[in-house]
Amino acid sequence: MFSRQCNPLILKTIFFILNMSLQNKVPNINTTKVDISKYFGFAISVDCVVFGYDKQALKVLLIKSDLPQYRDEWSLLGDLVQLDEDIDAASYRVLNDRTGLKDVYLEQVKTFSEIGRHPAGRVVTVAFNALLNVKNHQLKILNNELHWHDVKDIQSLAFDHKIIFDTCLERLKKKIQEEPIIFNLLEHKFSLRDLQNLYETILGISLDRRNFRKKLFATGFLTDINQMEQNVPHRPGKLYTFNHTKYAEIKKKMFVGINF
Amino acid sequence: MFSRQCNPLILKTIFFILNMSLQNKVPNINTTKVDISKYFGFAISVDCVVFGYDKQALKVLLIKSDLPQYRDEWSLLGDLVQLDEDIDAASYRVLNDRTGLKDVYLEQVKTFSEIGRHPAGRVVTVAFNALLNVKNHQLKILNNELHWHDVKDIQSLAFDHKIIFDTCLERLKKKIQEEPIIFNLLEHKFSLRDLQNLYETILGISLDRRNFRKKLFATGFLTDINQMEQNVPHRPGKLYTFNHTKYAEIKKKMFVGINF
Repeated sequence: MFSRQCNPLILKTIFFILNMSLQNKVPNINTTKVDISKYFGFAISVDCVVFGYDKQALKVLLIKSDLPQYRDEWSLLGDLVQLDEDIDAASYRVLNDRTGLKDVYLEQVKTFSEIGRHPAGRVVTVAFNALLNVKNHQLKILNNELHWHDVKDIQSLAFDHKIIFDTCLERLKKKIQEEPIIFNLLEHKFSLRDLQNLYETILGISLDRRNFRKKLFATGFLTDINQMEQNVPHRPGKLYTFNHTKYAEIKKKMFVGINF
Repeated sequence: MFSRQCNPLILKTIFFILNMSLQNKVPNINTTKVDISKYFGFAISVDCVVFGYDKQALKVLLIKSDLPQYRDEWSLLGDLVQLDEDIDAASYRVLNDRTGLKDVYLEQVKTFSEIGRHPAGRVVTVAFNALLNVKNHQLKILNNELHWHDVKDIQSLAFDHKIIFDTCLERLKKKIQEEPIIFNLLEHKFSLRDLQNLYETILGISLDRRNFRKKLFATGFLTDINQMEQNVPHRPGKLYTFNHTKYAEIKKKMFVGINF
């Protein structure tokens, strides 16, 4: 009862396909002299470290991990990259899928590849940074308990996400000292107190008020608009704007901010 | 004559294996709730952009590509990463395999993932930078016509390597303005002329001599050792050393090199 007529050509074809499919797990790649198919076993993910400035605190967006290994642990906003997807495009897709946010710039920071970093297999992840003002960017999706966490409270995270988070925070601190991105977080008119608070919050340190003002004025990028703060619970300070045009001019001519 | 007895259980098993092997190209990864095996089809490579300072010229190490698509084109020093290999470790392996160099620091710069960037399939590459003094690092392997090329002469490269090269050159220019890595390329004692030449060579621009000196002295990191250059074809200049201790001290105390 286990025997039946069988066309050997069909059988041969099946064996041929079976053999091909086992030998070449990933098709169409043998364009080099050596067989490189064994290298095509990586998955790639993106992880977005979204920093937010919120009422004199620096925060970061986290979600609860889906994986049973990391139950009740917090993790960065990440997902696997599709085989036909650019990694930068994936970072924007993930941010949008997880938060609904669209108008946020993501900067690639570093790729993390430690073996065993992910329980699902050989997953290499590319980390991206974002910095925004919380009050200007409302979260539209709140799955996996998505919400803002104070950076000061982050003790541990799922996977190797604490290492990624630390690396991205260091990059952010470096960047705000090199480029005027911090002015995007302020109102158009701001006081030196606002500006100093912002630097202190992101850098996580206290700055000497007098030195800070001296350094800032020396840059030449603050414009005194001859107005004072109003309705503030302290002595009103002068208001300034950031002079983007002057910044661009001077940056162009500048050799070596020799910063060391 | 095309018919023969055939065991349907065997046939069924073959179909089962065939089906499994087509569906799950990479085994042993289904540890999450959803089937993520389809994501494990990436290969990852590393590409090393090795810059060298050589007789007042900035150079870069290139090899001839093995691929027929890029015959006679120059490419960066790269190779595929093994599935059980860390990416940073791979960068040092590749540098050593290609050049014999060992005592060179490689810094991860950026990951490039454009679809179609590699003819062998979906290969994402992680670019690394190195900077060394050519005369202190002899190449021990010279396969694929490995040699130093003047950076000014690089018009095009294989794959997307010109984009990678440009990105890494920009990173290098930024880095020498932020960190004192340039002093590793100089002799222990150097003249301000040497130092300016080095900056000009790497940045690819001319600097005003007086401004340059003023800025450098203002940093406080140059120590005048009360010696003069000897046997030089120009008026001998004073010699200086870089004060690493003082640099470390000041760097520690420094808020915001506010560089913008």
